[in-house]
Formats: sequence, C-alpha cells, structure tokens
Amino acid sequence: MKYKIGDKFDKCFNITENLVKDFCSVTGDLNPIHLDEQFAKKTSFKNRIAPGLLLGSLIASVIGNDFPGSGTIYLSQTFKFISPAYLDEIISIQIEIIEIKRNNWIVLKTQCINQDKKIVLFGEAIVMVNDNNEVFTI
Amino acid sequence: MKYKIGDKFDKCFNITENLVKDFCSVTGDLNPIHLDEQFAKKTSFKNRIAPGLLLGSLIASVIGNDFPGSGTIYLSQTFKFISPAYLDEIISIQIEIIEIKRNNWIVLKTQCINQDKKIVLFGEAIVMVNDNNEVFTI
Repeated sequence: MKYKIGDKFDKCFNITENLVKDFCSVTGDLNPIHLDEQFAKKTSFKNRIAPGLLLGSLIASVIGNDFPGSGTIYLSQTFKFISPAYLDEIISIQIEIIEIKRNNWIVLKTQCINQDKKIVLFGEAIVMVNDNNEVFTI
Repeated sequence: MKYKIGDKFDKCFNITENLVKDFCSVTGDLNPIHLDEQFAKKTSFKNRIAPGLLLGSLIASVIGNDFPGSGTIYLSQTFKFISPAYLDEIISIQIEIIEIKRNNWIVLKTQCINQDKKIVLFGEAIVMVNDNNEVFTI
C-alpha cells in the first residue's frame, strides 16, 4: 500500500457568506442562525455560524479530491461539533491516516481547526482507497 | 419535555442531477462518479451516485427545519454509507427519537431509505432541542 500511518494533508477554506448561502440554498437549510445577522445577534452565538454539515462536506471533498484523493470510497464518517465556525473564518481541514486495515480500508482522523487553532469539528472516517490508481476497486 | 422516545418524522427528496451538480459545485467535490455518466459506467457502480455528504446534509436540514426543527443545536452525527444512492432515486430521510438525555439532549436515529426500501445510509445524531420555543438555549 502506498499509504502509511501518520500521512497527513490539510487545506484551508474561507467560510464566506456566499459559500454558506449557497450551501443552505442547495440543502434547503432555512436556519436563520446561518444567514440572518439580526437573528444571530439575539442568540448565545452572537454571530452567524456555518452549518456543521457544510464543514463536514468540505472534509468529504478534500478526502475525495486531495487525500487520499480520486477513487476513494467513503464507508463511514463521524462528526463531533465542538465549537461553532463563524462566517468569514478561515477553517483548516486536516486529514491524517491513523490506522490501516485489510482490503485497502484506512481510518482517517478528520478535523476542522479555525484561525485561532481552536478545534471546531472532530471526527473519524473509514474509507477504501484506490491503491493502484484503478477505476474504483469496490 | 414535549418530545418522547419513538417520536418520528420522514421527508422524501428526489436526488436530481441538478441537486447533485449544485452540491458538488458548492462543496468543490470533483469526483466524476457523481456527474460523468460515461465514467460511472466503467465503475462497479455502473451509474452515477450521489455524494454521501449530500444525503448527510439533507438529514441535517430536516433536523433543523422540521424535526425536532428550528432552534435545534447539532452536537454530533455519525454516518455509515451502506449502499449507494443513484441519481433520480427518491430518498426518504427518516428521523426517530431513540433516547432522551439530560439538558434537552436527545439521540436521533437518522437514516436514508431508497424507493425499494433499501437502507442507503444509517447513523445517529445527538442534538440539543429548543424545548420552550425560545431563541437557542445553549
């Protein structure tokens, strides 16, 4: 296998208003905490926050595009939403291989860290990697 | 608490090409298995499949919009991707309360079932509900 425990990758995303707006529009999320600044001010969050699953979906896109990359098959994913990601924050998506199992299955630590090095989201994924650069080996 | 174990809700979504295309565009998912029919034909899936996190994000939108609904705070979510959802399938998002914890925390069984009653995605979420219809109580 071309991968080993400890291999890692990270990529930053700017959680812009447009990104949040487009994500809410596509997924049908109507929660005003994401887009209504006046509403958000009245809550304990004080500002608009990104949908948790937007961050989760960015993790998935990094797994599929970058690391392990093309041909990766998603088997499972967990998310713990540790603290909110606010609009206009820069979120680093960090992926690290923590276990290698049989049949090209690997376990990934997946987390989102904000610009203040605070953990926003933590989780683990199990994926099947395309070890031979073939078209899907499932 | 106005909720009890066994309370449930379900909502159907048509996994259209436009929905998949828009989701991939917003999240930056470049995987051709979602949108390139010729590519998909050469894989073991034989047809284009929906991104797993699109289904996950639809679950999140149902939790936030419908059941438990507005004001719900997401604490965690797990996803097991049991079988693929193909484009143009009708996916039923099913949410059921399976445990009630302290401090307005409840555990939800969350699953996606296709039109042939096959489980596509299974998971559990822990959420904090807005039991008094107040603006977020976190």
